[in-house]
Amino acid sequence: MTTEDFSITDKNRVKRSYKRASYKKETVYHILDSSALAHVAYVIDNTPFCTPTTHWREGDYLYWHGSSASRMINRLKQGVDVCVTVSRLDGFVLARSAFHHSVNYRSVMCFGKATLVSNEEEKYRALNNMIERFFPKRTDEIREVTQKELKATSVIKMKIDVAAAKMRAAGPQDDEEDYANPIWAGVIPLTTIIGTYQPDDRLENGITPSESLNVWTSGKRLDDVLTETQQIYMNRLT
Amino acid sequence: MTTEDFSITDKNRVKRSYKRASYKKETVYHILDSSALAHVAYVIDNTPFCTPTTHWREGDYLYWHGSSASRMINRLKQGVDVCVTVSRLDGFVLARSAFHHSVNYRSVMCFGKATLVSNEEEKYRALNNMIERFFPKRTDEIREVTQKELKATSVIKMKIDVAAAKMRAAGPQDDEEDYANPIWAGVIPLTTIIGTYQPDDRLENGITPSESLNVWTSGKRLDDVLTETQQIYMNRLT
Repeated sequence: MTTEDFSITDKNRVKRSYKRASYKKETVYHILDSSALAHVAYVIDNTPFCTPTTHWREGDYLYWHGSSASRMINRLKQGVDVCVTVSRLDGFVLARSAFHHSVNYRSVMCFGKATLVSNEEEKYRALNNMIERFFPKRTDEIREVTQKELKATSVIKMKIDVAAAKMRAAGPQDDEEDYANPIWAGVIPLTTIIGTYQPDDRLENGITPSESLNVWTSGKRLDDVLTETQQIYMNRLT
Repeated sequence: MTTEDFSITDKNRVKRSYKRASYKKETVYHILDSSALAHVAYVIDNTPFCTPTTHWREGDYLYWHGSSASRMINRLKQGVDVCVTVSRLDGFVLARSAFHHSVNYRSVMCFGKATLVSNEEEKYRALNNMIERFFPKRTDEIREVTQKELKATSVIKMKIDVAAAKMRAAGPQDDEEDYANPIWAGVIPLTTIIGTYQPDDRLENGITPSESLNVWTSGKRLDDVLTETQQIYMNRLT
């Protein structure tokens, strides 16, 4: 847990609805850690690209991986500027005017320079950590990463230089004179939940999910599960 | 419904796992229409930015809006290149080796030039359409958009020049020799669902949700609801 803030620069300063903003590391990290989907923006020949990927965090560093032959990796290994955004919708906000309709959300924009993890040992550790971060202890049970697999995969690491979180979690805020309009207003919440496990077609009879998957209970909220597994992962790292 | 494809250029050609790719407009549009969250990448002074926003589609055009004072709008109104990515995670794929762990997902990257909707009438229509697209018929019930609100809001429109969808929806594909490893493998699915309506604190007693909200039934999948409301919206446009 940290009580630090990110410094505020031209890049991460939230210009609109700044009351919804936070530069606290604790807030930024919580949003990053409770999601498994990031969008990475980078520039090639002045053209912006936005690639979705699965990210994970270790301290002030974000990690993601990709095929060594992918466009994203080929660009990012040059050590370029990236913006990594993680966001999710928590609900639709229905107001009494179009203008005050809104969404509840949690989002974070992180800025930094991409670096290729070139040290073999660090890369091996990172690829295991990617599994451990989501499924703690699973690397004890799966077959080890081979040299060939290490070659085929690239890992990108980014120190979060500056970041900002932006959130909305409230009901509609209508103009005073509109409250008299007899129309339903409120929030329609959205939740992402863990579904029913689908065993692989070739799974042998009698093989059940390991105890390490207990945290991934069907019906639970994804953000809760990811927060829990990140906590287990961080505790094992230290 | 369209049977057309997007042309394939250097921008949208899927380089890795190209079997997961599709350039069919029908596929691209379905992914766009079944989601309410887009990530817009753009460049300011060679630095990439990735801003999350709520999008909607009309034919070959994507729309989104923002405060006239926001960084994104200030940049995009200059008519610059953008990449709009819409993606969601459908599940975690657990394999018998780290390398074959994966995620099931649906994503689409759209490329084009942002344009500011400057015609007042078109802008008024667009702001109503943003509500209609999610909540068909709701603009009949809410208070009309005022001139002041029109000024405070900017609408961006982008013709989708090229786009590519990329999807994975399958169980693990392990190396033949790893199937003997007695570990659970399969898919942990993720679903985003509509929660229980939260009425506004100031809602007067006896006001219930309009019939137009019937499609937003609690417990339904968000992607299904969004696909349905887009269909209703498109039918009313034509």
